Amino acid sequence: MSESSLSPGEVMSAVRERAPLVHCVTGGVTINLMCDGLLAAGARPLATSTLAEAPTLVRGADALLASFASLTTDSAEALLPTVRSARDAGVPWVFDPAAVGPAPVRTQLAPELLAQRPTVVRANASEIAVLAGRDGAARGADSHLTPDDVLDVADRLATEYDCVVSVSGEVDLVTDGRRRTRVHSGHPLLTRVTGTGCLLGALTAACAAVVPAYDAAVAAAAWLAVASEEAAHTSRGPGSFKVALSDELDLIVPTELDKLMELS
Amino acid sequence: MSESSLSPGEVMSAVRERAPLVHCVTGGVTINLMCDGLLAAGARPLATSTLAEAPTLVRGADALLASFASLTTDSAEALLPTVRSARDAGVPWVFDPAAVGPAPVRTQLAPELLAQRPTVVRANASEIAVLAGRDGAARGADSHLTPDDVLDVADRLATEYDCVVSVSGEVDLVTDGRRRTRVHSGHPLLTRVTGTGCLLGALTAACAAVVPAYDAAVAAAAWLAVASEEAAHTSRGPGSFKVALSDELDLIVPTELDKLMELS
Amino acid sequence: MSESSLSPGEVMSAVRERAPLVHCVTGGVTINLMCDGLLAAGARPLATSTLAEAPTLVRGADALLASFASLTTDSAEALLPTVRSARDAGVPWVFDPAAVGPAPVRTQLAPELLAQRPTVVRANASEIAVLAGRDGAARGADSHLTPDDVLDVADRLATEYDCVVSVSGEVDLVTDGRRRTRVHSGHPLLTRVTGTGCLLGALTAACAAVVPAYDAAVAAAAWLAVASEEAAHTSRGPGSFKVALSDELDLIVPTELDKLMELS
Repeated sequence: MSESSLSPGEVMSAVRERAPLVHCVTGGVTINLMCDGLLAAGARPLATSTLAEAPTLVRGADALLASFASLTTDSAEALLPTVRSARDAGVPWVFDPAAVGPAPVRTQLAPELLAQRPTVVRANASEIAVLAGRDGAARGADSHLTPDDVLDVADRLATEYDCVVSVSGEVDLVTDGRRRTRVHSGHPLLTRVTGTGCLLGALTAACAAVVPAYDAAVAAAAWLAVASEEAAHTSRGPGSFKVALSDELDLIVPTELDKLMELS
Repeated sequence: MSESSLSPGEVMSAVRERAPLVHCVTGGVTINLMCDGLLAAGARPLATSTLAEAPTLVRGADALLASFASLTTDSAEALLPTVRSARDAGVPWVFDPAAVGPAPVRTQLAPELLAQRPTVVRANASEIAVLAGRDGAARGADSHLTPDDVLDVADRLATEYDCVVSVSGEVDLVTDGRRRTRVHSGHPLLTRVTGTGCLLGALTAACAAVVPAYDAAVAAAAWLAVASEEAAHTSRGPGSFKVALSDELDLIVPTELDKLMELS
Repeated sequence: MSESSLSPGEVMSAVRERAPLVHCVTGGVTINLMCDGLLAAGARPLATSTLAEAPTLVRGADALLASFASLTTDSAEALLPTVRSARDAGVPWVFDPAAVGPAPVRTQLAPELLAQRPTVVRANASEIAVLAGRDGAARGADSHLTPDDVLDVADRLATEYDCVVSVSGEVDLVTDGRRRTRVHSGHPLLTRVTGTGCLLGALTAACAAVVPAYDAAVAAAAWLAVASEEAAHTSRGPGSFKVALSDELDLIVPTELDKLMELS
């Protein structure tokens, strides 16, 4: 049961009122959905991922998403310096360790990013297991793990790095090592389009720009989950679902979010 | 009041008849909307942004968009050599100085690109102010400026570089230092999806490939503005708006464009 | 007339049952449609294009698409080592030589990739002509060529490199040097959105992961063609067509595909 002090609807209101500038450092595949999703949610995206500019620009942002998704040479070089710059400037940051384990550069870079103490780590259960050292890099990501399979591991990661851990799956899990919230909402079509995990990371950053990390992680997961259920009602397949998802991130109002979501 | 010799509808007809090849050198975030928008409008996109190929390929293009949007290391290296190559080959080119001011590499690169005398500069009011030296880089972009706030600055920029300046905002402004046209059409949803400014730059390049620069800048702004109003009629939110915008760039016919647009 | 032993509907069933992991090494413009299209079709995309990671990750993939589309410095460096790695690991691979001829880096790189003996080459007629040495690089791509204009050239290419050649056009042609199949289905809107050629390459790789190359190339062309015809029924223009295309890749069932396609 959540002890968070702000409901997801209240967090949503805060994002829309303050329109935080969210800097996404990432590879190119999913950045478009991230930027469109942030705009739809009421935040403002910033998408530079070069070593030459990202560490400077992040100082003017309200939050940072540092993501391994479709890592490029540009984003690999920019990630750590941009995270350091965000930390110096007191900008909250979310770490998305996509493909850590099988991907060699990412697996090597992950501990260096963790050492910078992310505000929130957002990942699937297999990536969380790798980050926490339960699975070695050699074994690679095991896509059959669920958030509940890594419950203790996620708690330990949160405690060790004093961060919030948000584990995505059929049921999402958010933990800070003391509190746990499960988000039971969400539609399976989320797994049939590219970049919805990245979008959750970006939304989490938008929320972490305006409220405490735990409330932010729960709110972002609930917001995307309820939006996905609403979007599925008006979709014929994965193409129209992706379009409707951006619509619903915009259309849902705080009272609906708090009423439609299912947390425990 | 515009003194342009070709109406936006006439420019639209010319684009569709000649299907110009428009080379976009840019970072990756918005290139997909640019390419899809160009195809929808009746032009043909070309999207290489490497130093190794862009300067060669631009010689076969009918126009170039050189854009700072989501600058990558690749596009940063390619921009100036590609612009020089376009100039040598007599290919008209549009400059989009996105994020000039706060972004250090772009702020340094901007005067070098301006010195190559763009056919059209397409930007928001804050970027125009930075380009013209009214605001120092230290102050950064001021998103509260409107095109009318930079009226004289835009005129001066146009005169100094003998180019057309197209300033985007709630009301768009096009000036060549002697003539001014305002485009009053356009829907606010344009600001709720990523890349519509870039798309306007690409459309401006497509029009500049087939008609004089001033007529091209006015026509592109009117075309996108009217398409956005039509798209808003069939949209539920920003996701479906973006899809409908590509549809409308294709569906609108010249007589409708000239009838629905509101210029002054 | 095709002598393939598996119908496109049977290949579709095999893709959906086995959900192959398809690694796409490519530039950034079209990767989003490729990934979304693969997910819609029932496959799983992997999109890393760096020298540092792609050659490692491809060893865990079920197929590879090596594409010249919107070549970046990253993807140019990664292509040959990743293809070599795929060959070593016995991973089937599809070569998409986009813009070979006019693009200098690609024109130089193409023979080195061909020498690695692709499972399938997927290209338009002009690119096939350049690959086969019928047109010199100086002449560049001639967009007026149709698959039937390069019939003998395609046969020769297939025989020389012991691969399947899939030539895209109004009527698609698949040949292995002995057998030829023509796919007459397909809607003209496919040419009005960015990346549908790349998507065909990705689908071909997904099919080549689970069935022999010739059957894979025919099935992928038929699948996309029939999906495009279905998508056109529910589209207003190129924007909504692109969305509907992803929907239809998911919605079509094997018996419909075999019934609606027109092969010869």
